Amino acid sequence: MKYSKIPVAQSIVELCVAKNIKQVVISPGSRNAPLTIGFTHHPKITAYSIVDERSAAFFALGIAQQLQQPVALVCSSGSALLNYYPAIAEAFYSDIPLVVISADRPIERIDIGDGQTIRQKNVFENHILYSANLYSEVVLEKAVTDKKLQQKQFEAQKHNEREINLGLNKSLEEMGPVHINVPFYEPLYEMTEELSVKPLQILPEIKNRIYTGEELSPFAHLWNNAKQKMVIVGVAQPNSIEQQFIELLAKDESVIVLTETTSNLHHPEFFTRIDTLIGPIEKAENSVEQFEALQPEILLTFGGMIVSKKIKAFLRNYQPQQHWHIDSKKAYNTFFCLNKHFETSVNSFFKSFSPLLQNCNSEYGPSWKEVKRSRQARHDEYVAEIPYSDFKAIQYLVPAIPENYNIQLGNSSTVRYAQLFKWKSTQKMYCNRGTSGIDGSVSTAVGNAVISEDPTILICGDLSFLYDSNGLWNNYIPSTFRIIVINNSGGGIFRILPGNKNSENFDTYFETIHDHNAKALCEMYKISYSSASNSEEIKSQLNDFFSSSNQPKLLEIFTPRKLNDEILLEYFNFMKS
Amino acid sequence: MKYSKIPVAQSIVELCVAKNIKQVVISPGSRNAPLTIGFTHHPKITAYSIVDERSAAFFALGIAQQLQQPVALVCSSGSALLNYYPAIAEAFYSDIPLVVISADRPIERIDIGDGQTIRQKNVFENHILYSANLYSEVVLEKAVTDKKLQQKQFEAQKHNEREINLGLNKSLEEMGPVHINVPFYEPLYEMTEELSVKPLQILPEIKNRIYTGEELSPFAHLWNNAKQKMVIVGVAQPNSIEQQFIELLAKDESVIVLTETTSNLHHPEFFTRIDTLIGPIEKAENSVEQFEALQPEILLTFGGMIVSKKIKAFLRNYQPQQHWHIDSKKAYNTFFCLNKHFETSVNSFFKSFSPLLQNCNSEYGPSWKEVKRSRQARHDEYVAEIPYSDFKAIQYLVPAIPENYNIQLGNSSTVRYAQLFKWKSTQKMYCNRGTSGIDGSVSTAVGNAVISEDPTILICGDLSFLYDSNGLWNNYIPSTFRIIVINNSGGGIFRILPGNKNSENFDTYFETIHDHNAKALCEMYKISYSSASNSEEIKSQLNDFFSSSNQPKLLEIFTPRKLNDEILLEYFNFMKS
Repeated sequence: MKYSKIPVAQSIVELCVAKNIKQVVISPGSRNAPLTIGFTHHPKITAYSIVDERSAAFFALGIAQQLQQPVALVCSSGSALLNYYPAIAEAFYSDIPLVVISADRPIERIDIGDGQTIRQKNVFENHILYSANLYSEVVLEKAVTDKKLQQKQFEAQKHNEREINLGLNKSLEEMGPVHINVPFYEPLYEMTEELSVKPLQILPEIKNRIYTGEELSPFAHLWNNAKQKMVIVGVAQPNSIEQQFIELLAKDESVIVLTETTSNLHHPEFFTRIDTLIGPIEKAENSVEQFEALQPEILLTFGGMIVSKKIKAFLRNYQPQQHWHIDSKKAYNTFFCLNKHFETSVNSFFKSFSPLLQNCNSEYGPSWKEVKRSRQARHDEYVAEIPYSDFKAIQYLVPAIPENYNIQLGNSSTVRYAQLFKWKSTQKMYCNRGTSGIDGSVSTAVGNAVISEDPTILICGDLSFLYDSNGLWNNYIPSTFRIIVINNSGGGIFRILPGNKNSENFDTYFETIHDHNAKALCEMYKISYSSASNSEEIKSQLNDFFSSSNQPKLLEIFTPRKLNDEILLEYFNFMKS
Repeated sequence: MKYSKIPVAQSIVELCVAKNIKQVVISPGSRNAPLTIGFTHHPKITAYSIVDERSAAFFALGIAQQLQQPVALVCSSGSALLNYYPAIAEAFYSDIPLVVISADRPIERIDIGDGQTIRQKNVFENHILYSANLYSEVVLEKAVTDKKLQQKQFEAQKHNEREINLGLNKSLEEMGPVHINVPFYEPLYEMTEELSVKPLQILPEIKNRIYTGEELSPFAHLWNNAKQKMVIVGVAQPNSIEQQFIELLAKDESVIVLTETTSNLHHPEFFTRIDTLIGPIEKAENSVEQFEALQPEILLTFGGMIVSKKIKAFLRNYQPQQHWHIDSKKAYNTFFCLNKHFETSVNSFFKSFSPLLQNCNSEYGPSWKEVKRSRQARHDEYVAEIPYSDFKAIQYLVPAIPENYNIQLGNSSTVRYAQLFKWKSTQKMYCNRGTSGIDGSVSTAVGNAVISEDPTILICGDLSFLYDSNGLWNNYIPSTFRIIVINNSGGGIFRILPGNKNSENFDTYFETIHDHNAKALCEMYKISYSSASNSEEIKSQLNDFFSSSNQPKLLEIFTPRKLNDEILLEYFNFMKS
């Protein structure tokens, strides 16, 4: 077994392993050599090497998104670290555990004109759960005999070990990004066969508050007396809610449950397509009346970010009397009317809450479920009629994707189109909704693909794909990986927003039209490429697209740029009747 | 003339124009629509549209590097902004003026679960000269008549104007990055024909301290009495020092002037290749004796970062009695012996200092100039003999690049090899040495190319090129632009460092070997591609490479991965005798 000779590097590796952090994404560098040596020689560590740190961080995020366990990122000093920032912010808002370990120069080398030396201490302060700033230690050639120096080194080492523990624990406890900054003196490459540290162990404290019946009784009273209750589920992991609680919510006539594509929660009684419910009401002549009928007395939410802008707009205007959010970590005041944060897991909450509940007769559930059914019929009518477009492409795509796939959705248009369709309940849906950026979706999907036993597909637009094309610069992509790029020659979402369409200014600075495609990148990165430009071609290409292959595959679907916005906007009009 | 209806957007555009900031790089987004509308409709503004914000920021840096005037960056809210950070840190350490203007959500929308909403306030705190945090204003549909509301809006507007002025002024005064964060309420796309603001104007204060003869007299006394004086010039703009002062330093026998490739300062008496001077002494048997002979009594430095690690190591060990640095902004204690910071421009300093100087007879200059000549002869001998390699490729390349080119050098190996050669004095040399990252060199070079009247060439390694391949996703690349990629299949610099070469672990995690090339990217981005794999092919390809063309050109030079380190390390051995 080989270790770096530098004690603090040993401590970091040992503590990661002790806390079951086994996936480590390393970007090349010299200053981080002690960490690279330590991690890559450890038998319990699976290490990945990715050059572009921006991509490396989203790749790690994709792994952590699947595992729901911290993944470590290791980089050299300087701007390398700053390239992690977009993924760190995503992890911060999506509650994905990432452990950023950056090598640094010793403090006396900062701001004196040395290369690759910046102010790394607390550099992610706005979007990080913990910043552990470690001390430097010079490793002397001979063993230290001076007592004072021994004492100083001992204290530094113990300080470092405590900080490493606290940083790693924070990521485990609160599921989010932490930063450990560790300065190293040269020499950086020296190895030893013997571990010289036995680091302090501080166990993480995984909180899960159990609410008593007494505590919940006033809330149960409100719940049992409300005839109109709405449950909205944001981004959630598959299988995160026990079936008995799902059934409980589904069978109550006074409750409607609204889920999103990214909720990964399925029941035939649930409303899976929020925009299809709300959008047509917005367009209706009697929209005030309909919204008042839909307005809940109690709104119960759990899960992460909510994609639908329409439901946010609705509930901000038609506020419930009570909004309760269940999450062991945080509660956002998304609708400006949050009354209660239940600081526990959803299952724990319902375990305590469900015995207190009484079934409640109400027209709320049945009447809206009727609306849901009629919407479904109109939806089917509409998609049958529409011409070739983004909407049509998604329509072909959805039924073609096999069971059990991990589906990583790009932001902007893709995730919003996806919300309008019904997906298979065995599929697991992901989208980086923490910051909702177009950056990083390729790398995140590759991270998913690498770690998951099920195959992964990325569906994204042309801008997201090109933005993160370095996501393909990755030696670990399995041959099962699939990508669909919907190429409408620019940022189609801007056509749906209220800008001044079809001026040169709009084309250049908003829609940012281009004529690039993914073919050359596929050639470069050894991905099997095919394309489609009409309905027949899509159907034909999809026939074989999911069959096994010795290379990953990408299907680029070219759609006409100018029609898409009209088809989407008309959809909600059509649906209203 | 069209303006955004939002007053603060108008103020930002008007103040940028008033302060002569005319180049604006915009990334697409909706939240920044008021800024995009304002900038792109202004007749005095040249706007560029770049999708990938990381690349956009380095592109802006490349423009500002040429102009030495602030360039504005405009992006939407969310992670978009974070992608700017690598270029901002580079600008911070390279003293390049960048004005980052980020659109934000109103403060009540932050941390409540809205999309593309992060904590943008002060987010670059570690590496920014100024963070202006502006107020939101709702633009009401009818003119405000309520006096209290009028007063509140007036005060907010005046606060904003002051902050915008202070931010822009800081960038002008201290030549570095500043951040203006501006929240916008919807609607974002509304336009008006009339300007509704007349913003407060605060003039920047460009300091240039004039030292009196009296103040400088003690330093002149030390200078005139020192027999060994060394001047080192870091990164500097072409023509930044008056010829008379260059001559003054060149003719003094007690002075040796060490310049770097990036110093852009030329005189036949100067030592242009520091490593060629120092490297062989390190290898010599009597290195202590030689270093003692070279050790200066007074070290005078100006310019930015110093590339040569060897000169830093030498002067940290053989310290001068006096180290003085001339710079109107900052002085780094690069050699841990800084005695004096002259807070003025180099020309102003010498204007005051030169009348006080006496020429000083000394063997220091003549003897080291003799060494310089013998090194040159040995260099020529060595390069004539070496086999095909990175070193050899650079040897062919240097004389082939025509006069007057802007040359943007990649970091790591490229800039270090470049330091060993003599370039034409009409060529202007650039390299992002602020953070010395491998990120952003393509985009920076494209920025140079777009704004400069002279043609631009980028020379970089394969990892730098691939890292920033999105730099080519740019509609403004002139056909005169040239790229040389020296592809040694990985991070060649790591072979020169003391790692454990030629193990699988080393190949994967340090050198990060790959078999990619630039051909597909060139096809994708319509760049004329050629390649060379031996000396004959290089010579042949270079024949025509600089001739005019209707497309930019890229020449990829493939070199054998394993030989390069030996040839470079042996160079200094060979040179010592």
